Amino acid sequence: MSHSTAGKVIKCKAAVAWEAGKPLVIEEVEVAPPQANEVRMKILFNALCHTDVFYWEAKGHTPLFPRILGHEAAGVVESVGEGVTDLKPGDHVLPVFTGECKECRHCKSKESNMCDLLRINTDRGVMLSDGKTRFSKNGQPIYHFVGTSTFSEYTVVHVGCVVKINPAAPLDIVCIVSCGFCTGFGATVNVAKPPKGCTVAIFGLGAVGLAAAEGARVSGASRIIGVDLNPIKFEQAKKFGVTEFLNPKDYDKPIQEVIAEMTDGGVDRAVECTGSVQAMISAFECVHDGWGVAVLVGVPTNDAVFKTHPLKFLTERTLKGTFYGNFKPRSDIPHVVERYMNKELELEKFITHSVSFSDINKSFELMAQGKSIRCLIRMED
Amino acid sequence: MSHSTAGKVIKCKAAVAWEAGKPLVIEEVEVAPPQANEVRMKILFNALCHTDVFYWEAKGHTPLFPRILGHEAAGVVESVGEGVTDLKPGDHVLPVFTGECKECRHCKSKESNMCDLLRINTDRGVMLSDGKTRFSKNGQPIYHFVGTSTFSEYTVVHVGCVVKINPAAPLDIVCIVSCGFCTGFGATVNVAKPPKGCTVAIFGLGAVGLAAAEGARVSGASRIIGVDLNPIKFEQAKKFGVTEFLNPKDYDKPIQEVIAEMTDGGVDRAVECTGSVQAMISAFECVHDGWGVAVLVGVPTNDAVFKTHPLKFLTERTLKGTFYGNFKPRSDIPHVVERYMNKELELEKFITHSVSFSDINKSFELMAQGKSIRCLIRMED
Ligand SMILES: NC(=O)c1ccc[n+]([C@@H]2O[C@H](COP(=O)([O-])OP(=O)(O)OC[C@H]3O[C@@H](n4cnc5c(N)ncnc54)[C@H](O)[C@@H]3O)[C@@H](O)[C@H]2O)c1
Ligand SMILES: NC(=O)c1ccc[n+]([C@@H]2O[C@H](COP(=O)([O-])OP(=O)(O)OC[C@H]3O[C@@H](n4cnc5c(N)ncnc54)[C@H](O)[C@@H]3O)[C@@H](O)[C@H]2O)c1
Ligand SMILES: [Zn+2]
Ligand SMILES: [Zn+2]
Ligand SMILES: [Zn+2]
Ligand SMILES: [Zn+2]
Repeated sequence: MSHSTAGKVIKCKAAVAWEAGKPLVIEEVEVAPPQANEVRMKILFNALCHTDVFYWEAKGHTPLFPRILGHEAAGVVESVGEGVTDLKPGDHVLPVFTGECKECRHCKSKESNMCDLLRINTDRGVMLSDGKTRFSKNGQPIYHFVGTSTFSEYTVVHVGCVVKINPAAPLDIVCIVSCGFCTGFGATVNVAKPPKGCTVAIFGLGAVGLAAAEGARVSGASRIIGVDLNPIKFEQAKKFGVTEFLNPKDYDKPIQEVIAEMTDGGVDRAVECTGSVQAMISAFECVHDGWGVAVLVGVPTNDAVFKTHPLKFLTERTLKGTFYGNFKPRSDIPHVVERYMNKELELEKFITHSVSFSDINKSFELMAQGKSIRCLIRMED
Repeated sequence: MSHSTAGKVIKCKAAVAWEAGKPLVIEEVEVAPPQANEVRMKILFNALCHTDVFYWEAKGHTPLFPRILGHEAAGVVESVGEGVTDLKPGDHVLPVFTGECKECRHCKSKESNMCDLLRINTDRGVMLSDGKTRFSKNGQPIYHFVGTSTFSEYTVVHVGCVVKINPAAPLDIVCIVSCGFCTGFGATVNVAKPPKGCTVAIFGLGAVGLAAAEGARVSGASRIIGVDLNPIKFEQAKKFGVTEFLNPKDYDKPIQEVIAEMTDGGVDRAVECTGSVQAMISAFECVHDGWGVAVLVGVPTNDAVFKTHPLKFLTERTLKGTFYGNFKPRSDIPHVVERYMNKELELEKFITHSVSFSDINKSFELMAQGKSIRCLIRMED
């Protein structure tokens, strides 16, 4: 990273997805300078998230290729475009797939983080300002992904999607804060808000569910009940404070009934991190009447239907959903990093594997095999 | 009311439902003295509520007759049973169909009012302590209704279902606080909690929905949108601060879409007071993403299924249900009466009709014709 590159096109390495489901190819690409309200950053670390894999496979949506994927990452500002005043070269930053303009109705609401301008858009492969890409190879444009495209040594991001963090924070750890960790952790601490000593059920023990469990742990939950169809997940989850495990396949009645029996009528809070509508229904129906709160995180299929008897609501249960753990990226994420720096959060345990950038396709294999929680991708070696 | 009756059987008039759907008959009945933790009270005013009519018609549940109905009422303590220390003869009180023991998990929770011991029970026709009735005629027991049975000059109620109120409050007005008013009003102020200046949709403009509208009015809502299938309700609702009216029958698209168009994406809060599952779904889907909260109040049929796409939750909507407006009867209701005394609440407008006790069947007719919001039943003339 050097000031001398500001205003110029940068040539660097990027992992390009040329076709759906085909291994990424490390290419030399050109990265144009940031335009107004944009930031060009050097990416130092990535972690692979399911959402990258999902759009790489391009099942169930319009494929957009060639594209540079990647969104869970950390880096340093290289240069800034016109009008960017609160970031400067050298700042340590996390790019985020959803932004905060600070001016729309959502940004002004205390409750919402669904910015009208910068809310996640998985279909758009270009920059907002001019509808063009900042990436190209031999003149051929290469599309962006959720405004971040971090599988590149340099990328260009809208300033509203860039979070400035404590420069003392280790980027090879806090990179996971930019997506998976915050989604699950925020679902628990910002939305479910478990009071100290209460019981929490977590449905789905992938990275998001384990982050939700970390939220329950730091909230002082007395019991954290993990529910997953895959018993392999239970071993990993023990490190995350999950105290009991349930596999719905082991019972011949709905798992919500099993949970109600174990907990004298139901858990105080439930967080669903699976994407399965059956798990969503179970998560809602397993909370205690009178005060139970269930939170949905998993992204369902387009034809999913949530069904329940309305009496489950009338007996004073609450159901909420969340997006990015209800965190406002620029306002709240620096504080999450501080909680890690204060040793309140244990982020290291999420990072189970690490590969160099040239081996990025290995991280896809590890995820496909269900072996990794998070696989770090080191951009500099 | 006189001390000389304490400990003795009282003979008095009661309106007895001998058979499902047949006019009530004013009979002379015997009312036994209160047992331990019971209170015998003289009832001065009743207001007829739909729930009385529903159990009188005895459709869809096991009929229990002869029975003394009535639960929305006000009166004065005549005598108290053993162990009752916080009430004494002469206290002004409201009987409530659901109680507060102050000792169970629900009563100890700040959030719940669904007391394990005294939660509404529509099937039980006897007192909790000994499984017997306190009413009889010529030795034949007459069943109780939801622990209140206020269509009698005297009745016996568990102390946990008796609310002591300010003796200066006019009982011919505040009697409506004991059921319908609190249910709707609490759904808005305790559960939906609309911030000042926000938009609120109310589904169903019966007494409960109008009480929900009163909650929106006192919360300073900027727009109160009333939705009902019956346009006759719109005229009445104008007095309750409802500013706009929608009849789903007037549109060929779902009413939630109409509301979203009128309100730049949805209302901030919706309160459903119909019992129709279609209205419940519309109420949920018409709230704004990011911060919208919908509250269900209406009691659905047993086979009702609430259905929606889970994405409606993930875009940060909240759905809650409530029972008795989340008020804890003994702790919270005296404060509602105080708000009326302070002229914050306009209770008079709910009482559209009045009959003497001997004409009680007229109140049933008025309700059947949809003419009354609340018909007062004067017990003393
Ligand atoms: N709302 C948001 O902002 C947001 C952001 C990122 C990810 N997500 C979603 O969160 C979910 C979890 O993400 P992840 O990366 O942890 O996924 P993952 O695939 O690693 O984990 C999901 C786990 O759920 C389990 N599971 C599936 N169906 C189940 C069922 N019926 N009952 C119990 N367990 C079941 C699976 O075995 C798996 O272990 C996904 O749906 C993802 O799309 C949401
Ligand atoms: N949760 C509780 O604690 C509690 C307590 C008392 C009453 N309730 C319930 O509250 C509801 C309302 O009570 P009420 O006494 O005001 O009843 P009501 O019959 O006087 O009013 C209901 C109104 O809803 C309207 N309606 C019916 N279906 C509709 C639809 N699909 N869309 C729009 N409007 C529709 C009707 O035309 C009517 O005006 C009932 O279901 C009752 O059982 C609940
Ligand atoms: Zn992600
Ligand atoms: Zn915004
Ligand atoms: Zn009632
Ligand atoms: Zn209780």
